Amino acid sequence: MNDRFLRACRRQPVDCTPIWLMRQAGRFLPEYRQLRQQHPMLEMIKTPELAVEVTMQPLRRFDLDAAIIFADILPPVEAMGIQIEFVKGEGPAIGRPIRGMADVERLVLPAAEEIAPYTQEAIRIAARELADRVPLIGFSGAPFTLAAYLVEGGSSADYALAKRLMHQEPAAWHSLMEKLAQLVGTYLRAQVRAGAQALQMFDSWVGVLSPADYREFVLPYSRQALEMAQDSGAPVIHFTTGTTGMLETIREAGGDVIGVDWRVDLGAAWSRLGPEVGIQGNLDPLTLLAPLPKLRERAAEVLRQAAGRPGHIFNLGHGVLPDTPVDNVRALVDEVHQQSKRP
Amino acid sequence: MNDRFLRACRRQPVDCTPIWLMRQAGRFLPEYRQLRQQHPMLEMIKTPELAVEVTMQPLRRFDLDAAIIFADILPPVEAMGIQIEFVKGEGPAIGRPIRGMADVERLVLPAAEEIAPYTQEAIRIAARELADRVPLIGFSGAPFTLAAYLVEGGSSADYALAKRLMHQEPAAWHSLMEKLAQLVGTYLRAQVRAGAQALQMFDSWVGVLSPADYREFVLPYSRQALEMAQDSGAPVIHFTTGTTGMLETIREAGGDVIGVDWRVDLGAAWSRLGPEVGIQGNLDPLTLLAPLPKLRERAAEVLRQAAGRPGHIFNLGHGVLPDTPVDNVRALVDEVHQQSKRP
Repeated sequence: MNDRFLRACRRQPVDCTPIWLMRQAGRFLPEYRQLRQQHPMLEMIKTPELAVEVTMQPLRRFDLDAAIIFADILPPVEAMGIQIEFVKGEGPAIGRPIRGMADVERLVLPAAEEIAPYTQEAIRIAARELADRVPLIGFSGAPFTLAAYLVEGGSSADYALAKRLMHQEPAAWHSLMEKLAQLVGTYLRAQVRAGAQALQMFDSWVGVLSPADYREFVLPYSRQALEMAQDSGAPVIHFTTGTTGMLETIREAGGDVIGVDWRVDLGAAWSRLGPEVGIQGNLDPLTLLAPLPKLRERAAEVLRQAAGRPGHIFNLGHGVLPDTPVDNVRALVDEVHQQSKRP
Repeated sequence: MNDRFLRACRRQPVDCTPIWLMRQAGRFLPEYRQLRQQHPMLEMIKTPELAVEVTMQPLRRFDLDAAIIFADILPPVEAMGIQIEFVKGEGPAIGRPIRGMADVERLVLPAAEEIAPYTQEAIRIAARELADRVPLIGFSGAPFTLAAYLVEGGSSADYALAKRLMHQEPAAWHSLMEKLAQLVGTYLRAQVRAGAQALQMFDSWVGVLSPADYREFVLPYSRQALEMAQDSGAPVIHFTTGTTGMLETIREAGGDVIGVDWRVDLGAAWSRLGPEVGIQGNLDPLTLLAPLPKLRERAAEVLRQAAGRPGHIFNLGHGVLPDTPVDNVRALVDEVHQQSKRP
């Protein structure tokens, strides 16, 4: 088994820098789009055989150092009694958004085996298939990002409704976050029991908050979920975007590795995070649409900033974009391995 | 004349912290909305008497320390031969977006008096009316934000077209930015000649870039525009959002005062920017929709972070939101003045 990725998560020396890409299992691959024409999104996620197939697709094409299970951050909340649907072109939506304490009180706390059982099953199958190749990453949305979805009913430009609930009904907000922290922690642990060897918690929308709001309304719950996940023994990546003004605070919430977006120099980010943590990132996904010389130049800059320190996992600063050329992804993966070879 | 704001721009001691709010002349005021029902957006901007009326409206209600001319960042590009229109509910749009070198070559470099002459006239009138009250701020979009609009044709989630032009046709990109830097610098200087006593350059969308892309494709042009503006002798505020991962780089581009959004603690931002520069910000605009005790608490935190150092201008981290209660704005303005009183 190629254990470069797991070693880097633990800040152990590696032969070259490991690389995987957020959304590597997905939209930019022709074979994925072909499958999607035959199956709606929720069916893809809820049919373990399909989810495993999509998980494997990028590994057949590229020399990636980790697989990530094909899933979505929202379906696990169905186990709390929430109905979700995927609206074409608009992403996931919530049938009846959470707008106050009464809605929060209705949310149930499910047992581990009830949370996205199809994804847990997909992990069991994929982990067996991958046993001699690369580690499998399980993942979950973070409590804030899930709460923001549940309150807004979908994605949003400014998450005004989520912030209003936070400020105007703090008791309802804290109660919602408490339940979501339990859900996320329980679900992440269950994925390790199913066979995932590393975990990532996505707090994709938390960058809309001020550090003061983050500390008061989010940090304790992210910490709780991360600590529950780390109890499993698997390394945990804590990924956020738009938070480069408060990396120190994100780190305080926890995680073995901090995933950073492209809005900061990787070296500057690592200096601020300190040496006790690994770092994942951080190429702008749009760079994969640039001509190859520019792509290579920007990738080399990221590697130079990491300076060969143990604990760097190469990745994008966010997910691969749908119109990314497949050949550019191959070039990036190979370039990172070659450029970062240790003697 | 209340010169608290101008003194703070120059980092001179003040009796209390000055405050003004981005978009204080605009959508959240009932008297503005009433006027807008009778006049389309471009007519409001292009009729100096209407623009002056809107500029004055917030000063009649609140004890603000500066006025900002009512205008928009896009109309000045009309002088380059570009057609713009305001689509209801969607903001400004470009008739024929810039997509390559041929489009860039068609752009003309106008004389100072040809750039948004109606706004220059509005500044002349407003500056006379305000002479014994508060200073008037003139403003412009920054070269990148204007370029992003011109290439995308409107606003965008990821500015993929702008980034593609940058990477795939760098000569066209640099030529476009060179022309826009000239336009912005010329326009900002003209506003001071018309009577503006301070300037703000808005780079509202530049936070989509990596520091590497910013340094290569943006910084030289922002610097050129800021230096031209500073030639006027008026202090210049350099405002950006989403750039809290590269504040040091933003500062390198220039400005007497750096405007920061709410995604960073003001104290941490100022430490990174260093003592040779003023700072403007940085309350989350959504906080104005919170109950008064929470609004006061968050405002006090911003003031505490500034620690009474000369050079702080209190503001939001971005514009006032349309559904902000008028009474909350009054409470904030008065609170900032009272809480920051120097003995």
